[in-house]
Amino acid sequence: MHTPFPPHVLPVEPTHAYRLLNTGASVLVSSAHAGRRDVMACAWNVALEFEPPKLAVCLDKATLTRELVEASGSFVVAVPRAAQADLVATVGSVSGRDVAGQDKFSAFNIRHAPATQVDAPLVEGCIGWLECRLIPEPHLQQAHDLFIGQAVAAWADERAFAHGKFLALEATPPEWRTLHHLGAGNFVIPGAQIKGRQLAPRAPS
Amino acid sequence: MHTPFPPHVLPVEPTHAYRLLNTGASVLVSSAHAGRRDVMACAWNVALEFEPPKLAVCLDKATLTRELVEASGSFVVAVPRAAQADLVATVGSVSGRDVAGQDKFSAFNIRHAPATQVDAPLVEGCIGWLECRLIPEPHLQQAHDLFIGQAVAAWADERAFAHGKFLALEATPPEWRTLHHLGAGNFVIPGAQIKGRQLAPRAPS
Repeated sequence: MHTPFPPHVLPVEPTHAYRLLNTGASVLVSSAHAGRRDVMACAWNVALEFEPPKLAVCLDKATLTRELVEASGSFVVAVPRAAQADLVATVGSVSGRDVAGQDKFSAFNIRHAPATQVDAPLVEGCIGWLECRLIPEPHLQQAHDLFIGQAVAAWADERAFAHGKFLALEATPPEWRTLHHLGAGNFVIPGAQIKGRQLAPRAPS
Repeated sequence: MHTPFPPHVLPVEPTHAYRLLNTGASVLVSSAHAGRRDVMACAWNVALEFEPPKLAVCLDKATLTRELVEASGSFVVAVPRAAQADLVATVGSVSGRDVAGQDKFSAFNIRHAPATQVDAPLVEGCIGWLECRLIPEPHLQQAHDLFIGQAVAAWADERAFAHGKFLALEATPPEWRTLHHLGAGNFVIPGAQIKGRQLAPRAPS
């Protein structure tokens, strides 16, 4: 398996892939089928399983991404970084159906590279990527817009995520931190790290 | 409908309830049935719909919470604040099956109040609460551990979330910010807010 973007991008162990999603960051979902491709922002994503890594993304019926995911049976979930906030806001508010004569990659000059296991492109400059095969669940897709994927390859940029986890926050410049969508293109990014202590149970009365 | 915790806790409009989950914070899931009750931490949660507000939480088969959700057909999703990190880490690592002779509420002295629409208790001191009725999806629950809820009431503490959105970060002391789980009881909390600008598409070539 080749590494798509040397030298900083390294494979992520399957058992650690869920950690890319665990903090609830907004992601990009990219897809491609039969010469068409699209990418959208997705705040409504969730990890579902450690091994094999599974996740779900909520894809509105109006999106071109959804059409291409259904047609191709695969997609890529990428975790963008704060430096990409404009890109995330833009692909989150413009439909791939509305960039006449081209697609979002060309319309917004989005650098990308081929994935290793699926047809969907990898958007360059992100923190991490999960190449996913769709686990078809027609009722779930229709009734709740949820699409379940199994990650068949995962990658991360070691400047933000290495050895299976995010770097300590103090080692991560703000532009390399995750984006958490408040709404309308407004995001919060992590600013402090805290550890929850284990409380001791009191004796039953 | 009464307000569970006056004077700072106010109802959230149904169309704004999803915003409590949009940034991907870890939540608490509480449940009750036939005199038993439980509460657990859940990083794997996702909003699914604006109106009526829907969401999904991933509940492992080993959890008592899951058993009570299945039995009662309802649950509460609460968005805890950074000041509750110890509580979140604790109820996230101890099973309700392992606090012999009591439950987590008594074992860890968790203050709570009755909900208005469901039997599950509301953990006090959180940022917001979504009282949910389970939308039964047996295959989804069994195959992917996903439980879909429709929020039938929502509440938020105006010191963190008011008028349908989180307060500006500079108006929110760190202890009132959301918790985003890295793993093993380590959390990041928001530290900066940024706005993604809309990029202009370039003309098709």
